[in-house]
Amino acid sequence: MAIDEKRFLADLHKLREFGASGVGKGVVRPAFSDADTAARRWLSSRMQEAGLQPHFDPVGNLFGLAQGPSLLMGSHSDSQPEGGWLDGALGVIAALEIARASDRPISVVSFQDEEGRFGVTTGSAIWSGGLKLSDADALTDHAGTTLAAARASMRNLTQGFVDPGQFTGFIEMHIEQGPSLDTAGDLIGVVTDIVGIRDMVICFEGQQNHAGTTPMHLRRDAFQALSLFNSEIATRFQNVVTPQTVWTIGHVDLHPNASSIVPGRARFSMQWRDQDSDRLMRMEQIIRETAQKIADRSGMALSFGPLLGLEPVAMDKSLQKRLETGAQRVAPGKWRHMPSGALHDATNVARLMPVAMLFVPSINGISHDFAEDTSEDDLIAGLRVLEIAAKS
Amino acid sequence: MAIDEKRFLADLHKLREFGASGVGKGVVRPAFSDADTAARRWLSSRMQEAGLQPHFDPVGNLFGLAQGPSLLMGSHSDSQPEGGWLDGALGVIAALEIARASDRPISVVSFQDEEGRFGVTTGSAIWSGGLKLSDADALTDHAGTTLAAARASMRNLTQGFVDPGQFTGFIEMHIEQGPSLDTAGDLIGVVTDIVGIRDMVICFEGQQNHAGTTPMHLRRDAFQALSLFNSEIATRFQNVVTPQTVWTIGHVDLHPNASSIVPGRARFSMQWRDQDSDRLMRMEQIIRETAQKIADRSGMALSFGPLLGLEPVAMDKSLQKRLETGAQRVAPGKWRHMPSGALHDATNVARLMPVAMLFVPSINGISHDFAEDTSEDDLIAGLRVLEIAAKS
Repeated sequence: MAIDEKRFLADLHKLREFGASGVGKGVVRPAFSDADTAARRWLSSRMQEAGLQPHFDPVGNLFGLAQGPSLLMGSHSDSQPEGGWLDGALGVIAALEIARASDRPISVVSFQDEEGRFGVTTGSAIWSGGLKLSDADALTDHAGTTLAAARASMRNLTQGFVDPGQFTGFIEMHIEQGPSLDTAGDLIGVVTDIVGIRDMVICFEGQQNHAGTTPMHLRRDAFQALSLFNSEIATRFQNVVTPQTVWTIGHVDLHPNASSIVPGRARFSMQWRDQDSDRLMRMEQIIRETAQKIADRSGMALSFGPLLGLEPVAMDKSLQKRLETGAQRVAPGKWRHMPSGALHDATNVARLMPVAMLFVPSINGISHDFAEDTSEDDLIAGLRVLEIAAKS
Repeated sequence: MAIDEKRFLADLHKLREFGASGVGKGVVRPAFSDADTAARRWLSSRMQEAGLQPHFDPVGNLFGLAQGPSLLMGSHSDSQPEGGWLDGALGVIAALEIARASDRPISVVSFQDEEGRFGVTTGSAIWSGGLKLSDADALTDHAGTTLAAARASMRNLTQGFVDPGQFTGFIEMHIEQGPSLDTAGDLIGVVTDIVGIRDMVICFEGQQNHAGTTPMHLRRDAFQALSLFNSEIATRFQNVVTPQTVWTIGHVDLHPNASSIVPGRARFSMQWRDQDSDRLMRMEQIIRETAQKIADRSGMALSFGPLLGLEPVAMDKSLQKRLETGAQRVAPGKWRHMPSGALHDATNVARLMPVAMLFVPSINGISHDFAEDTSEDDLIAGLRVLEIAAKS
């Protein structure tokens, strides 16, 4: 049976109705939100129609299981607080279409909280044994909700964890989320490896005080400590990073966050990514040393949250070869090997079985944004490469 | 009739029950909150018992009016999001006690939103004509609520604006909110002038993007622009400021504020204070130039909110003299002249009539914090100085 491109695109557009932002094709579908759970219920009905056995595990990962040993395909259907319609969703819907069309057994998965409301690729991290459920349950989102409380909302849907032994390997199709393919005019990226990531919450605690009567030299202003930390690590990183290394302070929470009060506390996220584990560790040392130096110098209390992260992972050579074969047939001369700067569930699944990844272009490299998009021709090209890989 | 110190302290402690934080003696009583409105209702009943005519004006300023021409005393009963029990409240309750005890006509006032939920000393600014009600109605708090919406909640209590012509002058007693009196062991500060203040919201808008796939050199990270702005103004200010000058970035709002997303927008508060208007203006030029330079350099959109502020104000010499007489009698050799680094309603009232101010010590100089406090002996010393000033 051949793949049905119209059905594939129709399902993709149907999925973005869950949590539709009303801005472009964007979606607001963070893990365990009402929109996310509704989308997973719809996906499970689609899996059933495709002859797969739907199965929610205790953390909300949704599997569509084929009979006997099978190749697993998929990604995640949760989104960032402001997400694009394809990020994750594309890999899940493409896997569903391949499962329908393939004469070989294909199972489908939509992992939970890949976008890290609670941690980093939380659902696949727990399933793969990279994160203990008991530890994960204590993780909180920025509003202070625990994962334990969030996943309790799906209790009526969930069963036990799925045995990974039934899967022969995992292939994840995803948008690139960067500018490389789009600017080069290539249609397909065959991933060679996925960069590692570290993520940590840091908190400076100084002295909250009156913004008019506290002389500058007597202040212990937590925002000033954050600003100084930000500029000093940038300087110290210059000696260790490569052009591919990235780091981000994306979340900042000042207390009490009022214009007439010297901020007494600054809690913020520090995230860094690189292909080399040693470099990630050297950056961690710089981060801890610099924060400690600033805290000591400015008389502040300093605390670090748990270090979350994933190691860099190389893709499986034989699965990668099957994707290369497909890429060469579908887009001769218009595909490339490339690393993934973004983190993916495949990183976790690699603990359990051989994994490979396939990228399609992101227009202007935009992602994690309502404006994220990919041409439908490119989406279909990716689907066809996946079909060939599933057959070979 | 003599002042009743026990009644004065009992009223002070009663007032802190409205919005009690449960942490020390702290209060959470921002303007127009349920706790603030309940406190004002209680104050108006106390004014009535004292033989004063309670009167809420359209912005929630509460007056207790004596018959005929009178001296006005008071301060404000709203608090910061995390406030102390005395800030503002002390001046209102002290005025109430003086009005009860004095044989001369004393009127009492509790101004609304001195702490600037919507602007800067909003209630007295509007009453004094420094801020037009129609302009003020459009001001919003950090949650986006307008003053118009907030004051509508008190509509059933309010009457017209009070005619300032009936007041012969205004005396405001307040805690110092700084360390000077406490460290010097002085009991009383007679204020010579109040510093000027400027307050403005600034917003950098760059490009929200994926924190893993967007190379550092291609980012337009709004937090990085804020951090750079913060360090560059500190450098440029060195040529302009005095040891008394202060500036604060106390409120920061990143968007979308997620650890895996390069922040696309940073909206923050910039506040600066000094005794000299020209210096305040030179600092404004540096702020605008520096922000524009950074926005141009990093390809960001830049916007400035309305510039809120108050000019430096000198206290009235003859009212000041009456406070000096009281201070010399109550605390011979243990009082001083001093400027006010904090902003007060007296700054606005000075547009309408002669004003003077009296400070009592703040323990460790702490204020705008639940830990703010002053010894009861010092509170009573201040009350006695106020009594003498009212008689002389």
